[in-house]
Amino acid sequence: TKLWGGRFKESVSETVERFTESISFDKELYRQDIMGSKAHANMLAKQGLMDNIDRDKIFEGLSEIERLIESGEFQWRADREDVHMNIEATLTDMIGEPAKKLHTARSRNDQVQADFRLWCRDTIDRIVTCIIHLQVSLVTLALKNEDVIIPGITHMQRAQPVLLRHHLLGYIEQLEHDIGRLVDCRDRLNFCPLGACALAGTGLPIDRFMTAEELGFSAPMRNSIDAVSDRDFVMEFLSANYTIAEHLSRFGEEWVLWASEEFGFITPTDCISTGSSIMPQKENPDPMELVGGKSARVIGGLVTLLTMCKGLPLSYNRDLQEDKEPVFDSINIILKMLEASIKFAHNISFNKERIYKALPAGHLDATTLADYLVKKGQMDNSDRDKILEGLGEIERLIESGE
Amino acid sequence: TKLWGGRFKESVSETVERFTESISFDKELYRQDIMGSKAHANMLAKQGLMDNIDRDKIFEGLSEIERLIESGEFQWRADREDVHMNIEATLTDMIGEPAKKLHTARSRNDQVQADFRLWCRDTIDRIVTCIIHLQVSLVTLALKNEDVIIPGITHMQRAQPVLLRHHLLGYIEQLEHDIGRLVDCRDRLNFCPLGACALAGTGLPIDRFMTAEELGFSAPMRNSIDAVSDRDFVMEFLSANYTIAEHLSRFGEEWVLWASEEFGFITPTDCISTGSSIMPQKENPDPMELVGGKSARVIGGLVTLLTMCKGLPLSYNRDLQEDKEPVFDSINIILKMLEASIKFAHNISFNKERIYKALPAGHLDATTLADYLVKKGQMDNSDRDKILEGLGEIERLIESGE
Amino acid sequence: TKLWGGRFKESVSETVERFTESISFDKELYRQDIMGSKAHANMLAKQGLMDNIDRDKIFEGLSEIERLIESGEFQWRADREDVHMNIEATLTDMIGEPAKKLHTARSRNDQVQADFRLWCRDTIDRIVTCIIHLQVSLVTLALKNEDVIIPGITHMQRAQPVLLRHHLLGYIEQLEHDIGRLVDCRDRLNFCPLGACALAGTGLPIDRFMTAEELGFSAPMRNSIDAVSDRDFVMEFLSANYTIAEHLSRFGEEWVLWASEEFGFITPTDCISTGSSIMPQKENPDPMELVGGKSARVIGGLVTLLTMCKGLPLSYNRDLQEDKEPVFDSINIILKMLEASIKFAHNISFNKERIYKALPAGHLDATTLADYLVKKGQMDNSDRDKILEGLGEIERLIESGE
Amino acid sequence: TKLWGGRFKESVSETVERFTESISFDKELYRQDIMGSKAHANMLAKQGLMDNIDRDKIFEGLSEIERLIESGEFQWRADREDVHMNIEATLTDMIGEPAKKLHTARSRNDQVQADFRLWCRDTIDRIVTCIIHLQVSLVTLALKNEDVIIPGITHMQRAQPVLLRHHLLGYIEQLEHDIGRLVDCRDRLNFCPLGACALAGTGLPIDRFMTAEELGFSAPMRNSIDAVSDRDFVMEFLSANYTIAEHLSRFGEEWVLWASEEFGFITPTDCISTGSSIMPQKENPDPMELVGGKSARVIGGLVTLLTMCKGLPLSYNRDLQEDKEPVFDSINIILKMLEASIKFAHNISFNKERIYKALPAGHLDATTLADYLVKKGQMDNSDRDKILEGLGEIERLIESGE
Repeated sequence: TKLWGGRFKESVSETVERFTESISFDKELYRQDIMGSKAHANMLAKQGLMDNIDRDKIFEGLSEIERLIESGEFQWRADREDVHMNIEATLTDMIGEPAKKLHTARSRNDQVQADFRLWCRDTIDRIVTCIIHLQVSLVTLALKNEDVIIPGITHMQRAQPVLLRHHLLGYIEQLEHDIGRLVDCRDRLNFCPLGACALAGTGLPIDRFMTAEELGFSAPMRNSIDAVSDRDFVMEFLSANYTIAEHLSRFGEEWVLWASEEFGFITPTDCISTGSSIMPQKENPDPMELVGGKSARVIGGLVTLLTMCKGLPLSYNRDLQEDKEPVFDSINIILKMLEASIKFAHNISFNKERIYKALPAGHLDATTLADYLVKKGQMDNSDRDKILEGLGEIERLIESGE
Repeated sequence: TKLWGGRFKESVSETVERFTESISFDKELYRQDIMGSKAHANMLAKQGLMDNIDRDKIFEGLSEIERLIESGEFQWRADREDVHMNIEATLTDMIGEPAKKLHTARSRNDQVQADFRLWCRDTIDRIVTCIIHLQVSLVTLALKNEDVIIPGITHMQRAQPVLLRHHLLGYIEQLEHDIGRLVDCRDRLNFCPLGACALAGTGLPIDRFMTAEELGFSAPMRNSIDAVSDRDFVMEFLSANYTIAEHLSRFGEEWVLWASEEFGFITPTDCISTGSSIMPQKENPDPMELVGGKSARVIGGLVTLLTMCKGLPLSYNRDLQEDKEPVFDSINIILKMLEASIKFAHNISFNKERIYKALPAGHLDATTLADYLVKKGQMDNSDRDKILEGLGEIERLIESGE
Repeated sequence: TKLWGGRFKESVSETVERFTESISFDKELYRQDIMGSKAHANMLAKQGLMDNIDRDKIFEGLSEIERLIESGEFQWRADREDVHMNIEATLTDMIGEPAKKLHTARSRNDQVQADFRLWCRDTIDRIVTCIIHLQVSLVTLALKNEDVIIPGITHMQRAQPVLLRHHLLGYIEQLEHDIGRLVDCRDRLNFCPLGACALAGTGLPIDRFMTAEELGFSAPMRNSIDAVSDRDFVMEFLSANYTIAEHLSRFGEEWVLWASEEFGFITPTDCISTGSSIMPQKENPDPMELVGGKSARVIGGLVTLLTMCKGLPLSYNRDLQEDKEPVFDSINIILKMLEASIKFAHNISFNKERIYKALPAGHLDATTLADYLVKKGQMDNSDRDKILEGLGEIERLIESGE
Repeated sequence: TKLWGGRFKESVSETVERFTESISFDKELYRQDIMGSKAHANMLAKQGLMDNIDRDKIFEGLSEIERLIESGEFQWRADREDVHMNIEATLTDMIGEPAKKLHTARSRNDQVQADFRLWCRDTIDRIVTCIIHLQVSLVTLALKNEDVIIPGITHMQRAQPVLLRHHLLGYIEQLEHDIGRLVDCRDRLNFCPLGACALAGTGLPIDRFMTAEELGFSAPMRNSIDAVSDRDFVMEFLSANYTIAEHLSRFGEEWVLWASEEFGFITPTDCISTGSSIMPQKENPDPMELVGGKSARVIGGLVTLLTMCKGLPLSYNRDLQEDKEPVFDSINIILKMLEASIKFAHNISFNKERIYKALPAGHLDATTLADYLVKKGQMDNSDRDKILEGLGEIERLIESGE
């Protein structure tokens, strides 16, 4: 029976259980949930709301549960609804009475927020690491092709030749903004909701600063209703992620074009292409196509979150349970997109010769241009000279790579 | 090794495999894939492109595979990428040479489209059945509460009293539009892409009409490039689903309000409420909250699809692989939302007495109104009488339920 | 003062007026609003709820108002909130007392729905006409280039050569699905909400069938609460439009690529390109870039509508006022996108010679392929012969255009 | 003729002009454009790329243009495409030759980015001011109702009583996060793209640091391709805005509910309600309904932007022109939503008596609860005492407002 099932005469029907359960996805939070429970138990003991013996039993039990989960031996149960009740009820099965005291001065409403903030924090660190790897891969690629010049393109039309490495540094710069956003988001979400309980706090003499500190949060949150009801940190996190997705989708599209017969700038090695069962000449740059395709899902996930939260009266509503899946899904995708891009960057080679042969086409010869302008009366001869000088300078710059 | 792996020197790295595989979700199409393969084999045999003995072996093998899948014994392999290759390669493992002939005049590009269209067709039938169930539940609820009058509300303000059954019939009407959209969508998508092959058709003497007919399609599609590249039928299907989701989200919100202490119109039975671990007085209408919350995901899924397809040059691009997950996910949610709503409709009772006690508040007494207007000079006495007569008529209508 | 301002002690502050007005956009509905009012007056007169003299005055007044609006002389006033009150109040200014009778058995809640349905119906006809024009342009383009073969592309990699005209017919087919969706949408929305009044209908002896017929609707709507609260016809209309937008975005992207130096398939004439102030060699295919860019707005508009409607309890809520701007905006864009695509199709020429020179690259020579497979042991010699025969057949087909 | 029209034989057709123009919306940037041009002219003069006499003429001309625009006398011309060309061409009309020199070492690609960043920066300051006003209004409201207790609600069910002021401080806290996001966004976007020119920088001896400093930017941007192609600062800005919209939509919904007959917590004064033409008893809280409704548009605008940018190859593409309308539209809406909320907060009164009368319903009496738990064997008597003590403490806390 469910923890809260005592008062109900009828058992919750299977339909409802299947519809309302969240354990199928929120078990992802198990590590943070256990960490949070330990900090909470520590604080309760310190404040005299639990004795040390119980605290120790709880610690032992939780550590065992963590071990079971990680070894795949833990029995997740849908009738125990979510990660919190699964862990707490198993703990009760294990150690009995003391487990129940863990729920003192805590509600699933503040507990899930603490877990989710910890999870986002951890995940931000993983993503940042991954971005840095990609940046390093791009630098490596730039160095390997230090002298390659490619057509700079605007409107899909050749505009001015640019150094490939300058182009690649453009990517790196964009990823740098992404890191900045993640770091700001991390700072802003790193406050501790524990102690907000269901929505109104508790009268028990808890120490919110102690829990916050133990979990590495900057401070406790200032308002309990804000603590349980808001999801703006999730929105900000997803937003910080969709700009990454947008950037990668743009690299992706570009690399797919570069790998086409028409562009022919790059050749991916076999290990990152996939073929066609009926057209063996093909080497499709599928990973980068999918980087584009999958980026759409991060946008869709954000829309899910925003649409779900819109117009919800405070404080906690069950709708909010739906904030997790789009995040887990999007982050999973983002990490894979980053990995795929790293692999791709390591496994392409630039077809220098072909690029150079094609380079002149579509670009304007400076002298012709200047003459044209003089003829049209839009430039006098002294201007012409100045411009040609300028264009010469550009060329020098391009060649010297400044 | 992969089917198309022969020509590549290096094995496809795990990262890429993990990133590009679709078997984790497109195995959902196994039944349609097998059905399509059988129809294809039949046609090849009929056209003399395969002999009957091979056709029979293929049939037997495919039936066995279907059995294995349904009994959970089938070994899905990520290195075999997708549902098509998993089934085809297993068939080859089973029956050898003849299996390879199944790929004659077929590509995964047209195969996946056929599978997916069949799947959508089947699913539309399931959803329509579910909607009709919900309509029946609402009619039952209306009949059970035939004489209940509730405040009709605009702007969240009481406007005019209406018969509950009239209100519930409003829901039913909206669901009726949804059925119409699904049926139109079914008609429009029920054309057969087989024979389009990779994108350009085939020179082999296939009979596209035969395959189409055997699979219950209205006809073969007219253009092979359209057949492999377009996903507008998926968009239309998702669109037909989000109007259902929108409708359900509106009922959901309404029922959540009706179950509140402030409204108090309905009481859900225990079996469809969930409680609070720390506030035992509560019976939260979680399923209907989640109907609202989950509807957001259908919108998010649509955005994923639309964003993914936008600006993709023809014909097939790997990005398009990403069309399935949002659909599977959304349909799964829609079906559960419909089920939950049916259960809810069956398990609420209207608090007639409380509704009636509250009914007068916030509504205008007709005489006061008319007098007010006459006083303000906005109405003469004959108008007043006409209006009062009209209002009386409304009341009669309401009472007689017309 | 506002029509409904009588009872309020304080005047509505400017802020609120500016925030809540809709006249800045819903005046778009003036023609439909006047048409609806005439039909309503006719019906009231026929039913004896208004005398013929008043009806005639109302007709005259409304015709004059229509003339004023179309000549730009009409004074739209924000303090009269919306198109309905602007027209009705002006009518009162013009003809006095009889104008007030027009509001008998009508509310803005059903009136706006009637107007909007009529507007959508008219607009669908315009869009369908525009699509047919585009189809004709594409056929013309196909005929002008009857013998052009282009590389058929999958994964942005050359796959098999296809006839340009086959490719263009793919576009036409996709647009044909779009027409089907618009026609279905038109049929489904063409029901008359008049008579629903605020939400609960009216006790007055109106004739809903007469109004419906006069306005060209198939029938009156069946449920008054559905009539004033639902916006699924708007969603369906926008959905029918975003598939058009998706299709055009794909053509757009393709044509932008084709116009690039790297592809070089087409050359747009000057009149549909725009240049660069500093790079005179460039002819940017801006209209087709913008076809892509602007298609995003149709998706955004749909999201606005879906997000806005989600979770709104029945019946009418002021939020619903926000359903119009995304539609007006999207339809305006769609029509311009169609026009721009038509112009583009008329003003490009295919660079046959350049295409042909490039055609062999990236495609596999059939013999090489077959030999390769035989060598790898994946094919025996009889299969090889069969395949080569098949490939020869494909070539014949391509050349003969079947 | 257009600036770049010289080389084209045919005039740009009206259709294309109407489709591609951006002047109808980007004139919003005129102040920033003029400011940027002055800084650019200053720099050119300082670097010896323009003489001081020309610089002075340019300054004079630009100041006159600003005056004309602000007095409404400026002639915006669609054939001059955008704000940059309108201003530059008018300057040329005014002062002739020197105006042309302003285009030295500049392209519309970097110019529009500078303008837009400046505009976003200015707008962030306006929004932050507006948020602070709203926070002050909420504090005022809290102080005016210092002792009001309302039912704290979860799942739309009464949970625990809370102090109204604690609830309102929850709003304020959420708005505080919003300010933090805006400030971070401002810091990150405040870098100067000038000098990037079309995409590849310039060989002329410009001083990018000087321009950056004069315009109040932190520094020049580091990469020219990033400078002209990325729009992540726009995404971040819109994201920072939709969390505001989300927050306001939640307050809005809550206040709409509170104003309902069923809740009856607040009464809005007449000046912020609107009435019904046929139901004079109604005072609809339209502004707050529209706060909800309009918030959807901010989400839609974000989707437009994200969908538009997705998969665009670097560097500048004409699609990117479409980044402005969703931003202008969303910011316009956000500012109005904030204003409307401020007005609303100032014009509601809490119905203390009615709230208090209703307060007990739906809440659990602590003793009953504890007894229940003891009876069910889930609590021993000492626990019971502890809990009752805790609940007493909560009450004290609530009453003392901590």
